[in-house]
Amino acid sequence: MASAWLLPEHIADVLPSQARRIEELRRDLLDLARTYGCELVMPPMLEHLESLLTGTGRELDLKTFKLVDQLSGRSLGLRADTTPQVARIDAHLLNRAGVTRLCYCGPVVHTRPEGLHGSREPLQFGVEIYGHAGLEADLEVQELAIATLHKAGLKDITLDLGDARLVQGVLGELKPPADTLEAIVAALAAKDAASLAQATAGMPEPVSRGLQSLIGLYGGMEVLDLAREQLPDHPLIRAALDDLRWLSSHLRQCHPDLRLGFDLADLRGYAYYSGMRFALYAAGCSDAILRGGRYDEVGAVFGRRRPAVGFSLDLKALVALCPVTPLRAAVRAPWGEDASLRAAVRALREQGETVVCVLPGHEHENDEFDCDRELVSVGGQWVVRAR
Amino acid sequence: MASAWLLPEHIADVLPSQARRIEELRRDLLDLARTYGCELVMPPMLEHLESLLTGTGRELDLKTFKLVDQLSGRSLGLRADTTPQVARIDAHLLNRAGVTRLCYCGPVVHTRPEGLHGSREPLQFGVEIYGHAGLEADLEVQELAIATLHKAGLKDITLDLGDARLVQGVLGELKPPADTLEAIVAALAAKDAASLAQATAGMPEPVSRGLQSLIGLYGGMEVLDLAREQLPDHPLIRAALDDLRWLSSHLRQCHPDLRLGFDLADLRGYAYYSGMRFALYAAGCSDAILRGGRYDEVGAVFGRRRPAVGFSLDLKALVALCPVTPLRAAVRAPWGEDASLRAAVRALREQGETVVCVLPGHEHENDEFDCDRELVSVGGQWVVRAR
Repeated sequence: MASAWLLPEHIADVLPSQARRIEELRRDLLDLARTYGCELVMPPMLEHLESLLTGTGRELDLKTFKLVDQLSGRSLGLRADTTPQVARIDAHLLNRAGVTRLCYCGPVVHTRPEGLHGSREPLQFGVEIYGHAGLEADLEVQELAIATLHKAGLKDITLDLGDARLVQGVLGELKPPADTLEAIVAALAAKDAASLAQATAGMPEPVSRGLQSLIGLYGGMEVLDLAREQLPDHPLIRAALDDLRWLSSHLRQCHPDLRLGFDLADLRGYAYYSGMRFALYAAGCSDAILRGGRYDEVGAVFGRRRPAVGFSLDLKALVALCPVTPLRAAVRAPWGEDASLRAAVRALREQGETVVCVLPGHEHENDEFDCDRELVSVGGQWVVRAR
Repeated sequence: MASAWLLPEHIADVLPSQARRIEELRRDLLDLARTYGCELVMPPMLEHLESLLTGTGRELDLKTFKLVDQLSGRSLGLRADTTPQVARIDAHLLNRAGVTRLCYCGPVVHTRPEGLHGSREPLQFGVEIYGHAGLEADLEVQELAIATLHKAGLKDITLDLGDARLVQGVLGELKPPADTLEAIVAALAAKDAASLAQATAGMPEPVSRGLQSLIGLYGGMEVLDLAREQLPDHPLIRAALDDLRWLSSHLRQCHPDLRLGFDLADLRGYAYYSGMRFALYAAGCSDAILRGGRYDEVGAVFGRRRPAVGFSLDLKALVALCPVTPLRAAVRAPWGEDASLRAAVRALREQGETVVCVLPGHEHENDEFDCDRELVSVGGQWVVRAR
């Protein structure tokens, strides 16, 4: 029992100073999403496994804790990603014909951490726009993503663009088995030409050459021209490159300060991306702080194949990058049964002040709050004065 | 796959109208707790089973989903109650000598629902004060509990008082096995004299008579005098009755509108209560909306037996009782690439306005927001006007 206070690896408590910052950021980001017309939804932590995992790929499956429902005997999953749940809500519960903008913020749980220092309990905040297949929705999501990081106090942001259709276009009619496709995606993400050659051994030469070209296609706007030259002429590739050009020119216009890059080999994130994907990086961080894109197929399992585009991020990771906000000050008050003292304390609290009543016998303890004022009795009146 | 959108029994999505109300109430209640000097903590969803369950009783054990940690092979629990986690944080992470006030708000998950219409995923909000054994802390927690329901817009509240020491005092030296004690607690809660007689068969006559007396000890202030007459003269019973008298007289003084009752047989809630316990009821509801009390033993498993008193409630259940708040209004704006339009939209959002941009082709859809104004171009200027 000596270790009852030890937490599982990659799982941590959030203590007061950090928790307050997460709570404030959570409010700011939900309010920001609201100004874009996003409605808040709260999907459950537990769902039937097939609702969470159908069509979402093997990576999410491996990340998902499984349990058995005592009430039904069926398999349940603890959500590892909120997007499939929000797609279900859009498809079935709201069942609207038009554009629906939704946002959410809550814990997700992973069986394994991402990276050496990753948490197995990210606090996922995200936004989704359903019902519009045009690029205007992609752009709106990207603008909200940028505004989100600005709201968090991050400057010097890099936006990285790519498109899931490029690999699909290079593969063309070829439908490799799931594990081969996974190996290709992993080799592309790692820019590992040797592993990629191994994974594509035996494929037609234009396909393996096209995939190898993707590895080198990262950098600035010139990447789009290079891609046009180096990749095969396929309708999916043409569409993807045209979309990336349109989006990047609009982003450049609205956000002249934004650093814009392309990484056409990067398909990381979730397997359900079907079109444009993007990632945002903060200065000095090698991992993306926010990932998003288009995933028009994500609602198919729920019977409605609605256009969908969105992003998500981990609030716990984001807050670690944010400037520290100063602690709000508090008023120290004595404890007493006197009705006028109690009324004074109540009035201060109703004004939003934090009033720490010093319980009898605890007069000489350290304050956990920055008590810069105190409530004292002066001539029979309770007044607040500086300490 | 046709039913992929079906949720497990007693698990539900929270849709936009309800989610917004829950979010607003969440903020109000956390801010209220802050005015009492409570610091926010965020314990994880998953912990080692023995951290969650040691000393917390069989009921919580049965309510807790269990899983295996792939990283360590150890048993994990999905939290069904946040209080033991907060005790662990107080005992080990903060490790302060003085008074510590903490609050939290997050989902808990239960294997079985409470009652026919209960949710298996309450959103638990709670407050704890550690480090003060005196009644002043009990009173502060009760006052914050009452203020919490007032903040939620509930009037006409009943506070019900009891004390876990009464049963302990009646039992005296007798230490019945855990299942007998459970049967006694259940029979007392149900005021079921026959089951109680069965559970206490073979016990000394004063014990079984004392327990039977508890069944009848509910009502107003007169209950305290009756208890003094009918219950054995035991130090725990004297202390409990003195404390209940002190608390009720102070509550009566500060909250003359509060309906105050006693139910000395009610020990429902969690098994870790060690002293005063209370419950708050809203008018017309038979189930308590908030439960709290003193549980000085709860940190013992973490090596520090600190005095502790607190309460918790389910925000989802609370919001269902609250008056509906009107939807905030929004501004409808056209979509366009024009820089002045985009600047006008951005400025409105920075003022906190919700601006719904109508994406191309969606001009004739119903608004999900109450768009009482629209952004229109008048003489080359973007202006907001009523619709």
